[in-house]
Amino acid sequence: MGVTAGIGVFDSGVGGLTVLRAIHAALPEESTYYLGDSARMPYGAKSQETVTRYALAAADFLCELRIKALVVACSTASSVALPALREHVQVPVLGVVEAGVARALASTRGGAVAVAATEGTARSGAYQRALTRAVPGLRVVARACPLFAPLVEEGTVEGPLAEAVVRHHLGGLADEGVDTVVLGCTHYPLLRHALAAVLGPGVEIVDGAESVAAELGRILGERGLRAPAGTPAVRRYFATDAPDRLQALGSRFLGAPVPQVELADLFAPGK
Amino acid sequence: MGVTAGIGVFDSGVGGLTVLRAIHAALPEESTYYLGDSARMPYGAKSQETVTRYALAAADFLCELRIKALVVACSTASSVALPALREHVQVPVLGVVEAGVARALASTRGGAVAVAATEGTARSGAYQRALTRAVPGLRVVARACPLFAPLVEEGTVEGPLAEAVVRHHLGGLADEGVDTVVLGCTHYPLLRHALAAVLGPGVEIVDGAESVAAELGRILGERGLRAPAGTPAVRRYFATDAPDRLQALGSRFLGAPVPQVELADLFAPGK
Repeated sequence: MGVTAGIGVFDSGVGGLTVLRAIHAALPEESTYYLGDSARMPYGAKSQETVTRYALAAADFLCELRIKALVVACSTASSVALPALREHVQVPVLGVVEAGVARALASTRGGAVAVAATEGTARSGAYQRALTRAVPGLRVVARACPLFAPLVEEGTVEGPLAEAVVRHHLGGLADEGVDTVVLGCTHYPLLRHALAAVLGPGVEIVDGAESVAAELGRILGERGLRAPAGTPAVRRYFATDAPDRLQALGSRFLGAPVPQVELADLFAPGK
Repeated sequence: MGVTAGIGVFDSGVGGLTVLRAIHAALPEESTYYLGDSARMPYGAKSQETVTRYALAAADFLCELRIKALVVACSTASSVALPALREHVQVPVLGVVEAGVARALASTRGGAVAVAATEGTARSGAYQRALTRAVPGLRVVARACPLFAPLVEEGTVEGPLAEAVVRHHLGGLADEGVDTVVLGCTHYPLLRHALAAVLGPGVEIVDGAESVAAELGRILGERGLRAPAGTPAVRRYFATDAPDRLQALGSRFLGAPVPQVELADLFAPGK
């Protein structure tokens, strides 16, 4: 795959645009293809088999666009589908889980680490396993936060209701000796202010998006696959359903207006 | 289709069990087949085309089990897919929207009627059209309530957080002259106490489940399709993903333990 091939970024919906934003900032000359599987989102409460089937279909779609790396921006898919994806595609596959774990380990000061995630990610144990594999004996607290993503999608990211929901899911973490919270879902960084207000200054909030972008740059560099400076970057956006909704919601996640979103048809017979 | 054929009940997930519960209460001798499309739930934020495609696949699955009526327990699918379903299947198709509208019109005392629904149902305008078609000039207020279903699924149906979320989505309705709220999603009846606490005694809360069960009994009677008294009823439950989750969550919706849930494979190539 040549240096001008793109980076495929895949998420269950709109949240992965926070990861794309970090990639654009770190690697501005790289072309990117974003796919949000809005027809089947959210993945959080779905089984490993179903999430893996959806992830493989998304990977096939992105590979047809000519990519040199695949970033799984969805924590649920990163938690359960990376082995199947790595067997399935020819290009390097990066997930947000590993990136978040690396940064959490750099941040913790001897306390416990909490994982705030969807029900599926929390239940999969992927963050917990990765954290304790790296630091045996590390105390890890997993908290499922099923109300965070709907709250962010409907736009309530600050104020009393947002803080009440954060308290409902993450209250009492500091009392349990937690000094670092990994945000295990790409939606959660938008709740940063409410999270900080509830968790207090003693708890570090870790978002894997920047780490994944840095790791991506490193891998492409190692393999001599970085696009040369001055390359005109192509940026395309796809959704499996309601592209107008991705476009409308997306700007808050991308931190910039989302241009035209194309419909990706993953549902043709046999697909 | 003979009198011993069953009633097919279809929902995007677990919420339709509130409708099934009303059907079991009204028509205990009828066999029922419940299908929750948990692999693709929720439908609320998905497009009309996608929801219709999913609904037709669900109808095909239930028709293969031999049914004499199809109940669309999902408000989103009822709002957008009934015409396509009625063209597609041979048996009567009943939706929760029509049933809720009929009961709301019986309840209102000259005030405005509010529709509390998912984003997709509210945006479809199905309740609003049905209400104003029946009573031209009726004032209808539609409110999208995207946090209600996740709140119910995670089990927070009462208390300060539930009431804060209800206030967030439905605050101030009485001040707008609303005397009746139709619950446009099968999850919402579980929030009944929080709804009543916030809306106050002047606002009637209407749930379409009982109306749809009564209408189903009427239609079957008219066509001579009621199962004879004493018929042993078969009750089967299917989910397109994570059947154990439907079983675990379902009892709160069904008001009784959900027996074994079978996996429905709607994803074979060409399906």
